[in-house]
Amino acid sequence: MTGRSNRASLNTATVKHATLDEAVEAAATAGFGAVGAWRDRVQEVGAAKAGRIIAEAGLRASSLCRGGFLTAADPAGVAAALDDNRRAIEETAAIGASELVFVVGGLPAMSAPGAGPRADATAADRDLVATRARVADRIADLVPFAQEHGVRIVLEALHPIFAADRAVISTLGQALDLAAPFPAAAVGVVVDTYHVWWDPALESSIQRAGAEGRIASYQVCDWILPLAADPLLSRGHVGDGYVDFATITRWVAAAGYTGDIETEIFNEEIWAAPAADTAATVLARYEEHVAPHL
Amino acid sequence: MTGRSNRASLNTATVKHATLDEAVEAAATAGFGAVGAWRDRVQEVGAAKAGRIIAEAGLRASSLCRGGFLTAADPAGVAAALDDNRRAIEETAAIGASELVFVVGGLPAMSAPGAGPRADATAADRDLVATRARVADRIADLVPFAQEHGVRIVLEALHPIFAADRAVISTLGQALDLAAPFPAAAVGVVVDTYHVWWDPALESSIQRAGAEGRIASYQVCDWILPLAADPLLSRGHVGDGYVDFATITRWVAAAGYTGDIETEIFNEEIWAAPAADTAATVLARYEEHVAPHL
Repeated sequence: MTGRSNRASLNTATVKHATLDEAVEAAATAGFGAVGAWRDRVQEVGAAKAGRIIAEAGLRASSLCRGGFLTAADPAGVAAALDDNRRAIEETAAIGASELVFVVGGLPAMSAPGAGPRADATAADRDLVATRARVADRIADLVPFAQEHGVRIVLEALHPIFAADRAVISTLGQALDLAAPFPAAAVGVVVDTYHVWWDPALESSIQRAGAEGRIASYQVCDWILPLAADPLLSRGHVGDGYVDFATITRWVAAAGYTGDIETEIFNEEIWAAPAADTAATVLARYEEHVAPHL
Repeated sequence: MTGRSNRASLNTATVKHATLDEAVEAAATAGFGAVGAWRDRVQEVGAAKAGRIIAEAGLRASSLCRGGFLTAADPAGVAAALDDNRRAIEETAAIGASELVFVVGGLPAMSAPGAGPRADATAADRDLVATRARVADRIADLVPFAQEHGVRIVLEALHPIFAADRAVISTLGQALDLAAPFPAAAVGVVVDTYHVWWDPALESSIQRAGAEGRIASYQVCDWILPLAADPLLSRGHVGDGYVDFATITRWVAAAGYTGDIETEIFNEEIWAAPAADTAATVLARYEEHVAPHL
């Protein structure tokens, strides 16, 4: 394993059809230094065993994906979201990770991800300002529990294509504003190229994130066109699309980030490939397009 | 015609299959005060005649759509873009409009709108920072010619879903930064709900646009899901999607905007409807969701 690829992390969602065991084996064989684990694959084996699988392969757990979905306005929805996130915090600690990525959820008007608003949705259900304020309240609710477990809540800005139905955090700057009331060790942010590459404020937001000590993860995948029928699955291997990885990677490095770099790709075609092949391609693209700019 | 609907403008792209004559008749019959005209329908009859068709129906021409596509890096591409935009400026003046909407174009890496990058695209062709800098240079090239013709260049931020292939202006704040070197009478901005509804900085950017006197147009249509196969055509009638028109309209009104409010919808299903029906629906939605908040 080279020094370069030791910082590379394979997010298990990139090899969606692999069990945690299979994903970890593919990552270790290809030469990654870490894996980013999704909760479904962790829960299949239990968090403690998941931690052992990763550690015994000589890998780090760079993050757990994902907590969040904090936008409910009704008391039952709020309580359910807090309960689920407390479990996610416990799982993060149990697998030996410190970073829990939050996708914070969409508008209450949403009927289902990717679908139109509920027929009975009111003006309040479309109120983006109020929805974002509730996210801030829920983060405040969860920070003490996360701190007790040595886990950092990592806010992920999602591309504005997902603002209605998946995440009302839409820019890195907004994620930093939401993190600002809390210590950097308690609430961080992820820089995910797929979601933020277009942002005219990206360089200054990355600088700010670095200066505040909040960059908890750097995730890479490419913006490809045409969009897939389900835009959630419209991500490409690094180098196949429009993202300027050289520039963004230099900004992240200049901001002082020295942690793991996860490749997380949702793409039916890539998921259909054998995990070992995908892991090898992901690492080759990382070596070509990302590592030289660190 | 009520005072309310007098500010309503029907963009001819909303009734794409109608000639300018037919679109103007549908708008006047429904009770609009203005039309926003696309260049293709203006050029079919000639700009001078287009201006007469609009004026003789008792309507204003709220804008001409569209100039722009300024991102070429090669000298021939730059010269062609400047030539075409000078013609668009002349057409704007000829139809009796003062506002020429600019969609500034995508990355040089683009093979075609909606498609992936060219196989031979280089790192420079993905350089978003440099591409945006070229847009600033081309605007500076065109401002004197526009001023001579009494035409304002109106910068349109497009949703970041289009940052690669259609417009590297992605936020209202960025549009204002690009306009800043020029007088407000020379370079303005459009607030288009479809493109900017998700922006966490939207309220402050609208306030700034108003304070600077740069709001040249307020355009409305809704963000619907699921996205159409061609996301360009994935716009809905006001009220059918996720946009909070009450809040955004109040922000635009509070910023001092008193001009026309255009409905511009790209949607195959809406295009298939008779122009008179579409015009009536658009005006009813405007009266229900927009006008009460002005």
